[in-house]
Amino acid sequence: MTISEFQRLIERIYFERDSGRGRDRTFLWFVEEVGELARAMVRPHRGDLREEFADCLAWLSTLASIEGIDLEEVAAAKYGRGCPKCGAMPCACPREVLGGPGGRG
Amino acid sequence: MTISEFQRLIERIYFERDSGRGRDRTFLWFVEEVGELARAMVRPHRGDLREEFADCLAWLSTLASIEGIDLEEVAAAKYGRGCPKCGAMPCACPREVLGGPGGRG
Repeated sequence: MTISEFQRLIERIYFERDSGRGRDRTFLWFVEEVGELARAMVRPHRGDLREEFADCLAWLSTLASIEGIDLEEVAAAKYGRGCPKCGAMPCACPREVLGGPGGRG
Repeated sequence: MTISEFQRLIERIYFERDSGRGRDRTFLWFVEEVGELARAMVRPHRGDLREEFADCLAWLSTLASIEGIDLEEVAAAKYGRGCPKCGAMPCACPREVLGGPGGRG
């Protein structure tokens, strides 16, 4: 399944409801799912890690739809040619670059 | 690009570095990106919203790789047949179900 196909699937299931709720409240629900992912990682008996990853992806996707952004397009644009900072694959950035503001720690 | 292809791409660029850093610290970086996404939404002049969506997807993906989870597989398993709660597409859950614990608000 392509990233775009998944985004369209989530739109078919939830877009009317999600867009009616609005961006800010939808972001709040996304973050709630990020919290559930954390809980499933530290308390494996209290959540299904696989489902929490699916939920985080679904909420990120619906948020992108509300903002009019195509997730696949932006993902390919940024990472399709390797590390966006050093251009290499695998990334060959020095640690000081990676740990800097906006860098990849 | 399929979800799996993107996950493999991010693995090729970052997996050695990300897995060496460990799950907990990688989660921290993921949440930092979620914060950057929020900032780009409320302060459009301070970030590129498209890039922040790409970054959130990349960090969610690398976190799944560290946990040994295939994002595409879990996404299709949970959402491939419509709303996982009511089974419909579009979702036809009553609001009280959606607003409940673990539900979709």
